[in-house]
Amino acid sequence: MQAIRLEQGLLEQGLRLRTDLPVPIPARDEALVRVRLAGVCATDLELTRGYLPFRGTLGHEFVGTVVRAAQAPSLAGRRVVGDINLCCGACAQCLAGRPSHCERRQVIGIRERDGAFAEYLCLPVRNLHPVPDAVPDDAAVFAEPLAAALEIPQQVSVRADQRVLVVGAGRLGQLIARVLRLSGCALSVVARHDHQRERLALAGITAVSETQVEPHSADLVVEATGAPGGFALARRALRPRGTLVLKSTYHGRLELDLSSLVVDEITLVGSRCGPLPAALRLLQQGLVDPRPLIDARLPLARGLEALQRAAEAQVMKVLLDCGTDPA
Amino acid sequence: MQAIRLEQGLLEQGLRLRTDLPVPIPARDEALVRVRLAGVCATDLELTRGYLPFRGTLGHEFVGTVVRAAQAPSLAGRRVVGDINLCCGACAQCLAGRPSHCERRQVIGIRERDGAFAEYLCLPVRNLHPVPDAVPDDAAVFAEPLAAALEIPQQVSVRADQRVLVVGAGRLGQLIARVLRLSGCALSVVARHDHQRERLALAGITAVSETQVEPHSADLVVEATGAPGGFALARRALRPRGTLVLKSTYHGRLELDLSSLVVDEITLVGSRCGPLPAALRLLQQGLVDPRPLIDARLPLARGLEALQRAAEAQVMKVLLDCGTDPA
Ligand SMILES: [Zn+2]
Ligand SMILES: [Zn+2]
Ligand SMILES: [Zn+2]
Ligand SMILES: [Zn+2]
Repeated sequence: MQAIRLEQGLLEQGLRLRTDLPVPIPARDEALVRVRLAGVCATDLELTRGYLPFRGTLGHEFVGTVVRAAQAPSLAGRRVVGDINLCCGACAQCLAGRPSHCERRQVIGIRERDGAFAEYLCLPVRNLHPVPDAVPDDAAVFAEPLAAALEIPQQVSVRADQRVLVVGAGRLGQLIARVLRLSGCALSVVARHDHQRERLALAGITAVSETQVEPHSADLVVEATGAPGGFALARRALRPRGTLVLKSTYHGRLELDLSSLVVDEITLVGSRCGPLPAALRLLQQGLVDPRPLIDARLPLARGLEALQRAAEAQVMKVLLDCGTDPA
Repeated sequence: MQAIRLEQGLLEQGLRLRTDLPVPIPARDEALVRVRLAGVCATDLELTRGYLPFRGTLGHEFVGTVVRAAQAPSLAGRRVVGDINLCCGACAQCLAGRPSHCERRQVIGIRERDGAFAEYLCLPVRNLHPVPDAVPDDAAVFAEPLAAALEIPQQVSVRADQRVLVVGAGRLGQLIARVLRLSGCALSVVARHDHQRERLALAGITAVSETQVEPHSADLVVEATGAPGGFALARRALRPRGTLVLKSTYHGRLELDLSSLVVDEITLVGSRCGPLPAALRLLQQGLVDPRPLIDARLPLARGLEALQRAAEAQVMKVLLDCGTDPA
């Protein structure tokens, strides 16, 4: 089968389209999934730049069809999305009910496990969530990043009387804004580029420039730029006793004035993966429509080109057609 | 009157005992308070080292007797403790119900306002809280730092089934531990020195060494060392999705791996001043007895010596007798 893999050094040359791979064989508790559509996100691009020492098939945003699942035969033929974290079920974190923080976790396309930029992938049956018929593939493929956005209201209360600022209007910032606006809060999003502002306008979300951000005014700020400068702006926008949600991972460390966090009694909250079933509900009920974020859709055979497109300045979401082009 | 003041440069030489000061004259909404007893804390020591550009009378932990209060005559003769933040009542933070974060606040002994290492001080009547008769002076003088400890359960839920670690067993760490143990949680405190462990043992609190701290095990960690190394230990002790409360301010910045906060979904909470009435209740009901922390009690006239004592390695709390030695 075909797959887009990171194979050798840390350089981009390590990224290859392979066409000679065997279809993977699922373990006893796993399903074999035919990938239909996969999404490219910032993490994929950072992986190609050597951000993490991953080797294998990239991709963690997908919708697919179950080919077979020994322990859940009724899943065969169903469209599914999948939780990207594979947990051991036996470590302290798993036993404490935090499987996405499993000490021995694998993460598809990110850590020790082949991902979704392929014709097929294997996932434990317990990771799979059937997609309602009303949700088309090109919406369902956003379930994973939409769940990551939903992790924010899982962790902190987002109230209708709050002033909320999202810093960053890229792929993830757009989804976060679409989720947070559902609370009825007074939301604005810091957007640098016209193509970002246009997508926000489509969802009725107020875009502001960096200079329009009023200092110490926001009750809740979400940092979703993926760049250190975003943190400084987010911090400046926050009022005393406010909450700053960190949603982007960037390599390197940041120098922080912890004293000012104490004096202003700021709460910082790191936020990662979220609940897929809730993401599917938002899509099914039309509460979030991520499809206007799609800028390109290319067959898996043109996956290298797709990753290049996704890295371009004006491009939001790039999808890979993995199931309709068996090439 | 006498007072211990920071008067010239940033060096310790700027610290002086003055004996020639006039008794201050309260403003219309203020009370004149005869200071009975004052406490030396780490912030006072940092101020003498130039941590903040304060000039004036030091001291923010005190119990005193109201001499007169034009707008509240019934307060005259009452023993009181006082909220250290003087707010403007008109800025965005005051109007939002966060007076301790007033944008124009003065803080006695810390910021633009004379403090309690003196025979007299003035404070707005609304800052004063009468001390119950059952609370002796040498317990009431701890009301301010005890309130700061109580700010922690004001900000985060501390539950009986949690593993809680306090890093640092100095003046503030001791009080924090005494407050947190009231939740019934499984509490331990990282203590470096015997004199710290002895005070913990008096309150039935488990002391551990740094090497005994189990990585990723604590649900809630409080950093109260006042040193950058404390943060690293606190972070290491915390489990994924745990909460780290920052209770110490130190000069300088800290390099932080924000990505790891995101991946482990850590919550950082800065914590400062807390509720004085609750602190007085704990003292009145005997739920916390801070008096075993007292190591020395000197008259105000020996205030410079008292500050030196407080800076010594084995010394916990040093009190200044301001009302019984009119010298
Ligand atoms: Zn992603
Ligand atoms: Zn596990
Ligand atoms: Zn203090
Ligand atoms: Zn104010």
